[in-house]
Amino acid sequence: MFTLVGLGLGDVKDITVRGLEAVRAADKVYLEAYTSFLIGCSVPALEEFYGRPIVVADRDMVESGVVLDEARAGQKAVLLVVGDVFGATTHSDLMVRCSEENIPTQVFHNASIINAVGCCGLQLYRFGQVLSLCFWTETWRPDSWYERLLSNRKAGIHTLLLLDIKVKEVSDENLARGRKVYEPPRYMTIHQALEQLKEVEANKQGGAIDSNTTYVGVARVGSATQQVVAGSLDELLAVDFGEPLHSLIVAGDIHECEEDHVKLFRATKA
Amino acid sequence: MFTLVGLGLGDVKDITVRGLEAVRAADKVYLEAYTSFLIGCSVPALEEFYGRPIVVADRDMVESGVVLDEARAGQKAVLLVVGDVFGATTHSDLMVRCSEENIPTQVFHNASIINAVGCCGLQLYRFGQVLSLCFWTETWRPDSWYERLLSNRKAGIHTLLLLDIKVKEVSDENLARGRKVYEPPRYMTIHQALEQLKEVEANKQGGAIDSNTTYVGVARVGSATQQVVAGSLDELLAVDFGEPLHSLIVAGDIHECEEDHVKLFRATKA
Repeated sequence: MFTLVGLGLGDVKDITVRGLEAVRAADKVYLEAYTSFLIGCSVPALEEFYGRPIVVADRDMVESGVVLDEARAGQKAVLLVVGDVFGATTHSDLMVRCSEENIPTQVFHNASIINAVGCCGLQLYRFGQVLSLCFWTETWRPDSWYERLLSNRKAGIHTLLLLDIKVKEVSDENLARGRKVYEPPRYMTIHQALEQLKEVEANKQGGAIDSNTTYVGVARVGSATQQVVAGSLDELLAVDFGEPLHSLIVAGDIHECEEDHVKLFRATKA
Repeated sequence: MFTLVGLGLGDVKDITVRGLEAVRAADKVYLEAYTSFLIGCSVPALEEFYGRPIVVADRDMVESGVVLDEARAGQKAVLLVVGDVFGATTHSDLMVRCSEENIPTQVFHNASIINAVGCCGLQLYRFGQVLSLCFWTETWRPDSWYERLLSNRKAGIHTLLLLDIKVKEVSDENLARGRKVYEPPRYMTIHQALEQLKEVEANKQGGAIDSNTTYVGVARVGSATQQVVAGSLDELLAVDFGEPLHSLIVAGDIHECEEDHVKLFRATKA
């Protein structure tokens, strides 16, 4: 049996009761640690709460299918995933492999930023396609998200921007020398995302954002230190959003019932 | 303290550990029972698992703010919400009232169909705006979702259709006679949704759906009896999806990595 268990948003106790039972009954417990980031806890804290050792699975271990070895041998393996379980194609790929190899599977869902973003007061059914912003390099500055942001904006709907996470990166220099030395993890901040939005708009001038646009910055959603601030680009640039993870919403038209909730988070109170 | 606790998708044990702790520590526990539906359990089953009595709160109790009474008096009140907590504007409204009345709040998120739909193999970041289909009556046949479906389809992205739930309805006759007699609850089926799609397309002929469109019907997502079937409109009409809740996805362009997963659920195997 191969079981995917969503961990939810942060705290060790954000796991569901069924998820916890599966973890405690497992022969082997993996934590997928490269498509997201544990916000409010650590691997030792999880191990203590579960009473089970955890193997941190990096990209190689997940994509090579090593995490399926115990399940292939008829044992119970659990892969813990931060947020919900199907946020990344790699988890779909594991389900496909299990089907091909006749390994039974189970899934225990949990909250992810995709639904928890409702905490900012904008209604989930008024969000368009989710977009991802990547860290830019000197030679690679992707901005293909712009057209989709523009399309959401023209439709008057909100856009959740997921901000880049870089873990276990190897620098160009170390890569050239064949050294598997990892850079410290990096998490894109709301400020970096706002600067990217501003720069791409200045280049494209399609009107996806303008001086009247409302942004909502959300940091560490679901944790005790959750932070939500709504305002203009400059207002949000003046806010210290603290530790990761950050996400950013570009609001579309804000309905009256939404504004009643959003105004609780306005940088400038009316 | 007023605490919103998401129950997740079905099973009594889909609550998170933190959510369960809040329920067990509460002075009063309400269940919001009109915007969604408990799939895999019943109120007595929840009461037994929690060891706490539950007051089922209907629309009147929630919208009038009666559910805040204990929290106003300094006690701990929990409102249980099926799925995640911010799926309906009424829950946002409660947060606003708490802020106005200086009642402290807490939120424990959980899975909802909005993210759990990833189980069908289509990637969450390739979904556009979520749409809701309503039961039609003789005089009220809303189809304003059509333009948004068309817009998602033109953008090549997927559309999750949430299907109507009618609980505690009073018939026109009983309404006219002033009798508060409730009709049995009704849940729109995948078949009903497909028929509605077909009819609106036939009227509007915008090309939001055509004979090549892939649909994915999902029933009781997250429960032990979860059912996922992908196929053409006629293929899905031939499937018995069983008990509620049902949801329907109109697929956009299906990427290769998505198709590998979706094909596990195809009505007709290639």
